[in-house]
Amino acid sequence: MMDASASPHESGAFDLSSYLNAKSQQVQEALDHILKTPPNPDARICQAMRYALMSGGKRLRPALCMAACETVGGDAAAAMPAACALEMIHTYSLIHDDLPAMDNDTLRRGRPTCHVAFDEATAILAGDALLTMAFETLSSPAIRKTDKLAIWLDVISMIATAAGVRGMVEGQMRDMLAEHQPSLALAELEALHRLKTGALIEASVCSGAAIGNGAPEQITCLREYARHIGLAFQITDDILDVEGDPHIMGKSAGSDQSRCKATYPSLLGLAASKQKASDLVTHAVRLLSPFDEAAAPLRAIAQYIVIRKK
Amino acid sequence: MMDASASPHESGAFDLSSYLNAKSQQVQEALDHILKTPPNPDARICQAMRYALMSGGKRLRPALCMAACETVGGDAAAAMPAACALEMIHTYSLIHDDLPAMDNDTLRRGRPTCHVAFDEATAILAGDALLTMAFETLSSPAIRKTDKLAIWLDVISMIATAAGVRGMVEGQMRDMLAEHQPSLALAELEALHRLKTGALIEASVCSGAAIGNGAPEQITCLREYARHIGLAFQITDDILDVEGDPHIMGKSAGSDQSRCKATYPSLLGLAASKQKASDLVTHAVRLLSPFDEAAAPLRAIAQYIVIRKK
Repeated sequence: MMDASASPHESGAFDLSSYLNAKSQQVQEALDHILKTPPNPDARICQAMRYALMSGGKRLRPALCMAACETVGGDAAAAMPAACALEMIHTYSLIHDDLPAMDNDTLRRGRPTCHVAFDEATAILAGDALLTMAFETLSSPAIRKTDKLAIWLDVISMIATAAGVRGMVEGQMRDMLAEHQPSLALAELEALHRLKTGALIEASVCSGAAIGNGAPEQITCLREYARHIGLAFQITDDILDVEGDPHIMGKSAGSDQSRCKATYPSLLGLAASKQKASDLVTHAVRLLSPFDEAAAPLRAIAQYIVIRKK
Repeated sequence: MMDASASPHESGAFDLSSYLNAKSQQVQEALDHILKTPPNPDARICQAMRYALMSGGKRLRPALCMAACETVGGDAAAAMPAACALEMIHTYSLIHDDLPAMDNDTLRRGRPTCHVAFDEATAILAGDALLTMAFETLSSPAIRKTDKLAIWLDVISMIATAAGVRGMVEGQMRDMLAEHQPSLALAELEALHRLKTGALIEASVCSGAAIGNGAPEQITCLREYARHIGLAFQITDDILDVEGDPHIMGKSAGSDQSRCKATYPSLLGLAASKQKASDLVTHAVRLLSPFDEAAAPLRAIAQYIVIRKK
């Protein structure tokens, strides 16, 4: 569940906290249902998938997907398979990133990481299984019965492209190669983050808009919005790694510095980083001006992204 | 390329060796083309993907997919995206299975395994990227332009289901848990193999038949064929691990025994294992009797599976 208690104030009348809690609850139920469908949901692999997937993440990507669907006039419920798939892919990436051969993290969302709670082989396989299950979810019998097959194939393409070698995986690879390169240029750091976190955030927004039957110019506009908040999200992550509260974040702070990683604060300083994140959010909200009140959740999420504590 | 030099004789007039070489060449070209599409095909992650994917595997799954497509009267070229996706998924599974935390193998297809040639982090990510690229390939613009969207969504579903927690991943998990359990019951061993290798072989045949517009009763028949050859394939793998030539196989023999793994030879003995594999193939070929000469490649592949040397 997202802690957005401070948001109603910042975003005017819209109660983001209630909105996110409601969406998070729906996603939780949908994920729980999907995790119960394999023949043996108590098998070790399913336990590890459930452990990682149901550990109370922010559910930001599902919320963006459903909010984008509503922004173009669609029904958020129609976007649920994409919302679930995005969360599965995000979770798989965390499991693999945490592995000893990658970031070697032992704490995630306040609990032992998957390979610590289970073992390395199980964690690798649980990640593989969640990534695969995302595409099973995006091609389920319920979807194959709709009259929107072209849209769903487009969504599969968007999400696969964002998650793979043109997006998240290449971002993580660059992140690994950038360790011990504290002098990385700002442009390279930005390119890295656009791939590592930006691409999937963009796919979250664009897939939701596509499922809501958004017009091409609406989707173009929302893509730009997503690019701005994606970068603001990452800058805020870097800032939290410097000055965040480990108890609230559920993971240790200072990990970037201990890995000699270039970050926005290390390249720009803390104050300039905060200003940049804030400017990006202002721009993102301006990009939503063609939309009416249905875009209130996306406006509020943009503002929430830079004031979050975890 | 598949070494099927002995096959023309066994399978009558049909020249399997030429057929497989031609198909393998087409798949090789298609995979090469796909690997060149990312913005930076020379990036480390792309090099690792290419290293693993283009290392001359048997290309059995693509051949089965295209042969099944032809068996029901379809054009094999139409099945190429599925053939490529299946090979990507097979290759990703080999990369991850070879990792130190899993089987810890250093040799594959006669060359150092991916994590030895690159490093562990790169190998994990290359596997993730190949799995993701499979679904990108199955939802490419060329596919989205066809009038067969329902079939392609069905194919995505079949392949994702076979690769995930209802198939290959669960099989690999059981395989890990079964190490040092030499007394595994035969039924459990069979269930493990149906998941670990059988499911993807079944999806190879069924996806090809679906793309070729096979009738439901034809697909049912071909699914049974696939189940039989899938098991025969695994039994032969176990036999080769006992008496195969490591130079021909490109990997070390005797690895099952050194891991105290239950295998068909360890549970049934070598002679009974060979008989069982041969009986399965006879049955598989009988299942093809409703089909005409277009099924010649599938008949020959069934016979090849138990006489192969690698």
